[in-house]
This record gives sequence, structure tokens and C-alpha cells, in this order.
Amino acid sequence: MSIPTLPSEIRQQCRTGQLEVPTPGLALGYVQANLVVLPYNLAFEFLLFCQRNPKPCPILDVTEVGDPEPKLIAPGADIRTDLPRYRIFRHGELIEETTDIKAFWRNDLVAFLIGCSFSFENAMLNSGLPVRHIEEEKNVPMYKTNIKCVPTPIFSSPLVVSMRPLPAHHVVRAVEVTNRYYKAHGSPVHVGNPGIIGIEDLASPDYGNTVTLRDDEVPVFWACGVTTQTAILQAKPEFAITHAPGHMFVSDLKDEALSI
Amino acid sequence: MSIPTLPSEIRQQCRTGQLEVPTPGLALGYVQANLVVLPYNLAFEFLLFCQRNPKPCPILDVTEVGDPEPKLIAPGADIRTDLPRYRIFRHGELIEETTDIKAFWRNDLVAFLIGCSFSFENAMLNSGLPVRHIEEEKNVPMYKTNIKCVPTPIFSSPLVVSMRPLPAHHVVRAVEVTNRYYKAHGSPVHVGNPGIIGIEDLASPDYGNTVTLRDDEVPVFWACGVTTQTAILQAKPEFAITHAPGHMFVSDLKDEALSI
Repeated sequence: MSIPTLPSEIRQQCRTGQLEVPTPGLALGYVQANLVVLPYNLAFEFLLFCQRNPKPCPILDVTEVGDPEPKLIAPGADIRTDLPRYRIFRHGELIEETTDIKAFWRNDLVAFLIGCSFSFENAMLNSGLPVRHIEEEKNVPMYKTNIKCVPTPIFSSPLVVSMRPLPAHHVVRAVEVTNRYYKAHGSPVHVGNPGIIGIEDLASPDYGNTVTLRDDEVPVFWACGVTTQTAILQAKPEFAITHAPGHMFVSDLKDEALSI
Repeated sequence: MSIPTLPSEIRQQCRTGQLEVPTPGLALGYVQANLVVLPYNLAFEFLLFCQRNPKPCPILDVTEVGDPEPKLIAPGADIRTDLPRYRIFRHGELIEETTDIKAFWRNDLVAFLIGCSFSFENAMLNSGLPVRHIEEEKNVPMYKTNIKCVPTPIFSSPLVVSMRPLPAHHVVRAVEVTNRYYKAHGSPVHVGNPGIIGIEDLASPDYGNTVTLRDDEVPVFWACGVTTQTAILQAKPEFAITHAPGHMFVSDLKDEALSI
């Protein structure tokens, strides 16, 4: 069976169990989203954390309490079945990976769909900028930094960043291109010296893979949606669900819809 | 006593009862904000309404439950005393206007500070674009439209817009200049024919004053923060507080901090 190209078809294949692979490269040009599901009693605090930290946590949609349909970005979709893979957490501990969360759904759950870097990476590629981890067919390298997110009483986290090496003469253009996509992490948070933001060794990312950094290249760092997951692990909520890394929700929005 | 020029001094004079006038033109270049105060049990829904309608309701800061300090935009300030005038609502009815809300404060209240058009008007003036209601020393004309905000289960509202007439050859520049201030309503929502968005008579605004529209000019419409107030009046919450029209919170942020 071939992988379809339309978001609705991808979601349908997830729903029927035919598609369980990571989503990078699927439905190119359509917005993919991180998923966070929390009980309603944490929903205000988590939305507040995202509002205070819009670069790592750009909110695209929030479902009604108990309703699994993300009406703004994919009317008719069901976040309980339409992602290829999920992670279930209790008190901050990963207890299960699964391809369907219907058995875990509760009437007090709220789902948050959060922008991801695929949208601005497409824009970079369309502008002729290299994206190294795509060239090398790896996951993007991600690092915890010494930058603290603006906390709420319950949620706090160091800012997690992703890194893309760029030839020095392309750095300004990369800032310009990604800045337009402020709902997909937007412009970089740091350019150049990793030590300044508390990254000791680029060759040892905290998440993802190491990629090649050439002599004429500068490491450029963007806020990363994994920050939401570290915030949740620190808060240890009674119950939480997220997408499994790389297994995102594919929405009906086009990348351009996120841009300014 | 002269009116001071620094936000902290203006807030101090509000706190001590020395300043009770409207704030347009005060502390020029600093961000002013709409105020909405609601009980915690409505806080998630209201934040969600704002998140779904970022053009009329761009959130600048949200206080912790029961805490009157807007830590992000004015550390040390107290929203109970630092605005010149407030309105108190019960079940959607205006019950009192007052210059101090300490007597009304409760431990379950959350304050929302929402961007306002003064920031982009300064940018327009700095770009050589006319702002008619400032020229004519009036309040900006505002209109209810036939555009519906994206609702939540509790909050819904027609989009309220403000109108500024512009010479036709300045319209594109006005879009460019205001687009940068996406946390202060951003680019216009409509240019040209008022009838298309349900405005029957420009000479009869729903709020504010009529301004002169010349023969070579086009009416340009921006989303307006009054939308939050109409949403609250429709929801009829048990209790709510807002700033009195034109009597805004003056923050420590510079206008440029809101721009992209």
C-alpha cells in the first residue's frame, strides 16, 4: 500500500491501522502538529505556559473539553485515532506506546495541537537553504539549553532547541524566511556559539541525531516543541498523552497559512 | 500637577488617585493594554477564546490566580490600582465605575492584558500615515460587523472593528506597517466597502465618534479589542472587571517589543 499525499487520507490510514510510520516528508506543504493531551484541571495552566512561551509552544488548536475533534485545523478529524503513534504518561512516567488512544480517552481531557518545525523547513528548502538533517536522512539534533522558559506555578522547563548548520552567508536569509512562520517556532533563538546557551558539545544532542557541521558553517538554533514535553515531565501530571516522537498530527492547513 | 511620561510614574499617579484621565497619548511609545478580569472558572475558556481570535484579542500577559501583578509586561505593577478607571460587571450588567478595584478583588480572579491599537497607530504616524481620529481629537469609530469570531462553548461575539480613513495610495503601506504589530491587532481585516462586512452606515459607529472620510480616501478596518467586552457581555459571567473605555493599563513594554 502506498502512502497517500492528502492529510485526510493520511489520517484515515492512521485510523484504520494501515499507517504507523513517522510523518516527516508526508503530505509535504501541509502543517503537522505536536500533540499534548491533559486533564481539564491543568488546561488553563498549560495554555498559559504556551502563551508565555510562544516560540517553543505555538498553539494551533485546542479542543473542547472531552471532544476529540480539532475543529480549527482539521474539521472531522479525531485526535484519538488519527496519529500514527502515541505515548501515555502517568505521573510523568511513560507507561505505554500505542497506535490508538480510544481506550485511554476521558470526558475531562483537552488536546493541544502545537506548531512544528516542518513548516519552516519547507520554507527554507523552497528558498534554497540547506536543511542538513534532511540531507543526511536523520532526525534533527535537539539540545536542552540554559535558557529558562517563562514559568507558570505548575509548568516550567529549560528551553529545548533544534540545530541546523548553515553556511555563514545564508544565516540572515534563514532568519528572514523562518521569522514569517511565527506559529511554527519562527526565527532562531540563537546564532553561533553553542556555549553561550549552555550547550557543551554539539556532537552529543539530548534528543535526535548528530549532523555534520562544516568549517564554513554556523550552528543556528530554533525553539523546539520538545520543550512542551519536558515541561510536562517536570510537572508530573496525573495523566498525559503526547504523540510519539516524529509521529505527528497531519492537519488540513497549508504551511503558508501559518505565516505572516 | 503635570502628567508624567514614564509608565511607572503614570501607574503610581493612578495608584495614589492623582491621575484619572483617559490614557491615549500618555507615555507615547509604550504599550497600553485592555484589561479583562474574570473568575478562574472562566479563565481557560476566555484564554481559549483569545487564542482562537488573536487579531481582536492579542494576549500580552495573564496574571496568576489571585495575583494582581502583571509580571511579564510591568513587574511590580498592581492591576487593582494602576489604571485610571474601571468598570465592574455582574451577570453582564455594568454595576459601577470606579478608580480602584481593591474592594472588589478576590482570590479566584485572573487578569488578562490585551494589546491595543495605540501601538500600531504610533507606527503609522512614524511612517507618515495619517490617523484621522487623532487629527480630529476624537475617539476612533468602532463598528460591530457580520464577521463571527471563532466561538468557544461559553464565549462568542461578532468581530468589532475600528476604522481609519486613508488616502488610497497609502493603503498598502498601512497594511505593511501594521502587519508587523501582530500583538496589537496587526494588519487590517478589511479594506474598502463597509457593506461587505455588515456595516450599513459609517456615519453611525456603534462605539466612539464619527470621523471625516474624504473623497480620495478608503475606509480601512482593523480588529478591535472591544470584541473582548462584547464577548463578555454575551456570556454574562457572574463577575467581571474591565478598564473603562480609553482608560488603559500603561505597561513597561515599548511598542517595538510587540512587532515582528
